[in-house]
Amino acid sequence: MSDPESGPVPLVPGQTLGILGGGQLGRMLAVAAARLGLKTNVFDPDQFAPAGQVAQQLFSSSYRDRMALTAFARSSDVITYEFENIPTEALDLLGNLRPIRPGRQALAISQDRLTEKTFLAEQGCQTARFASVESLADLQAAIAEIGLPAILKTRRLGYDGKGQVRITDPSEAESAWDEIGAVPAILEGHVPFQFEASLIAARGLDGAISVYDPGENVHRGGILATTTVPARLSPSQRHDGVLMAAKLLNALDYVGVMGVELFVTKTAMIVNEIAPRVHNSGHWTQNGCSVDQFEQHVRAVAGWPLGDGTRFANVVMENLIGDDLDRLGEFARDPRCAIHLYGKSETRPGRKMGHVNLVYPLGAEAAR
Amino acid sequence: MSDPESGPVPLVPGQTLGILGGGQLGRMLAVAAARLGLKTNVFDPDQFAPAGQVAQQLFSSSYRDRMALTAFARSSDVITYEFENIPTEALDLLGNLRPIRPGRQALAISQDRLTEKTFLAEQGCQTARFASVESLADLQAAIAEIGLPAILKTRRLGYDGKGQVRITDPSEAESAWDEIGAVPAILEGHVPFQFEASLIAARGLDGAISVYDPGENVHRGGILATTTVPARLSPSQRHDGVLMAAKLLNALDYVGVMGVELFVTKTAMIVNEIAPRVHNSGHWTQNGCSVDQFEQHVRAVAGWPLGDGTRFANVVMENLIGDDLDRLGEFARDPRCAIHLYGKSETRPGRKMGHVNLVYPLGAEAAR
Repeated sequence: MSDPESGPVPLVPGQTLGILGGGQLGRMLAVAAARLGLKTNVFDPDQFAPAGQVAQQLFSSSYRDRMALTAFARSSDVITYEFENIPTEALDLLGNLRPIRPGRQALAISQDRLTEKTFLAEQGCQTARFASVESLADLQAAIAEIGLPAILKTRRLGYDGKGQVRITDPSEAESAWDEIGAVPAILEGHVPFQFEASLIAARGLDGAISVYDPGENVHRGGILATTTVPARLSPSQRHDGVLMAAKLLNALDYVGVMGVELFVTKTAMIVNEIAPRVHNSGHWTQNGCSVDQFEQHVRAVAGWPLGDGTRFANVVMENLIGDDLDRLGEFARDPRCAIHLYGKSETRPGRKMGHVNLVYPLGAEAAR
Repeated sequence: MSDPESGPVPLVPGQTLGILGGGQLGRMLAVAAARLGLKTNVFDPDQFAPAGQVAQQLFSSSYRDRMALTAFARSSDVITYEFENIPTEALDLLGNLRPIRPGRQALAISQDRLTEKTFLAEQGCQTARFASVESLADLQAAIAEIGLPAILKTRRLGYDGKGQVRITDPSEAESAWDEIGAVPAILEGHVPFQFEASLIAARGLDGAISVYDPGENVHRGGILATTTVPARLSPSQRHDGVLMAAKLLNALDYVGVMGVELFVTKTAMIVNEIAPRVHNSGHWTQNGCSVDQFEQHVRAVAGWPLGDGTRFANVVMENLIGDDLDRLGEFARDPRCAIHLYGKSETRPGRKMGHVNLVYPLGAEAAR
């Protein structure tokens, strides 16, 4: 930058952004960083990590490899990440060498469902009813308090997608407690929502905030299937969403893009969870905004001014999961369709292989 | 693709596009290829070539290194290029191993100004008056025929930007002939144009053609400074431009994106030169179209259907040359401004460091 203001010095072209995690989010962050003249290092145990194909350097090693982590940090100027379950010891090591953005507080909160829900409630957000569960007796008490149906979730996420059990009858308590492995957990009440939505919000190193227009999400089999903008929200709901996102970002002195998942009921917007990173439900911004969520995140963590996230089109984002990729010929021939593939060599059921953004003029009826 | 038609088989995600030349054009091609799930190899003698930062593999060696060329070709599925002055011997070797797109005919034509002008005239394009110059006597005869002012240009371009001399008086003939090194040349008559424009056109492997809306160019010091869309052309001029581009592409059985530079006079559109590649004057498409020239080129050479190149915004593309990069802070704060930097570590006067696209709604007056 030609005229840095007081405070941390922004990255300049030629400097290097280190990205923990080399999946599709890391890949699209790397491409956005390249567009701004920044180099990228990617750290990922997988030597074929998709982001490695577009990064200056791929550090392929375990998160317990202190030599590799040190080399990665020393050759990076700022470190960010594409996923939240980074081992604490790795973060301790990296954080002593280089700034990690978004900061540790956001990571700590999103790594623990009880801490997250408690934080959200403290900030005045509505959440599902919840109770801490440390024992079978706790679980039985929580069921009595919250009611059923409810979902028992481990506080900390594994990498394996396990750790959630739905409970519909009190007699299921013991088997549910066994199924999640009798580890610290949280019981969440069921929320009868009309639809799911998400807020993709950014905060710069200078404290500036920018929130994208909310998207409406449809999940299938626990995986995001589509995001549609605009969401079916009233002007006052949109307004409330912006204020809510700003409050969360400010409370965490957050730097970067955050995804906030919402359950929208007839009377409320209930926060389901927050993700301290770019988010699948923000992929529509690649073809609906001048500055997409990936560039916005890079701008924020690089200390640049946030960009313009004004929406200029209606968009339906559709994830390509598993053999959805077989439809590529159809997508390639569809003039409304912008294609984004992740460079994953192996197709597996449930694996996110890419996404398409179906783009419509503002004001047009989106194909719901 | 799920349903390939007859003819050459398209590249599928995971296959590799080889790019000859690792400058900014190669870099932006590599990013576009990544978006479509393709890997890229880049061949460039410069080990710090900008495209190497975003490619799967950089082959950094001389174009005379037959081992390196062979390894590059064998690990690529289709080969394309970002510049036209590729040594013939290298093309011979590569072309025996893998398809090169666009093909050799387009390269041969654009490598020789006399062949190019002759081809253009044969296709019914208006060109500047021109004559072949093989000797000082030829030059004197050409001056008598064409008139002055005129420009003496070597038929083949060097890499050093030399090879052009403006002649305003017959007495300058001998010194001009000496200055270009007494090599085969062409004398071109001066064209008193109103403005310069360019056509960015694409032709797919299936013969389909797509032409972007023409841009209006301003050069400073022989280097493109800005491209503005829309250009000041009448509907019938636009129509003629599309037909002209289609005729040239079809005549060459062309596959890929081509840039056609025009001089626009009060009565005519005169073709100055053609470039068998993505073109600086097409960079506005990155923020004005759903499918930009880079993705369009990749789609074409990969055998995919061409994408939709409809313009959805008015754009002014401004090249960042030399220390224009000092204005980065200003650009980053401008909400109309989309930034594209090339990852070149060294700033030099006259060196293209990046560009910005200033984006305005359709119908808005662009800031000329």
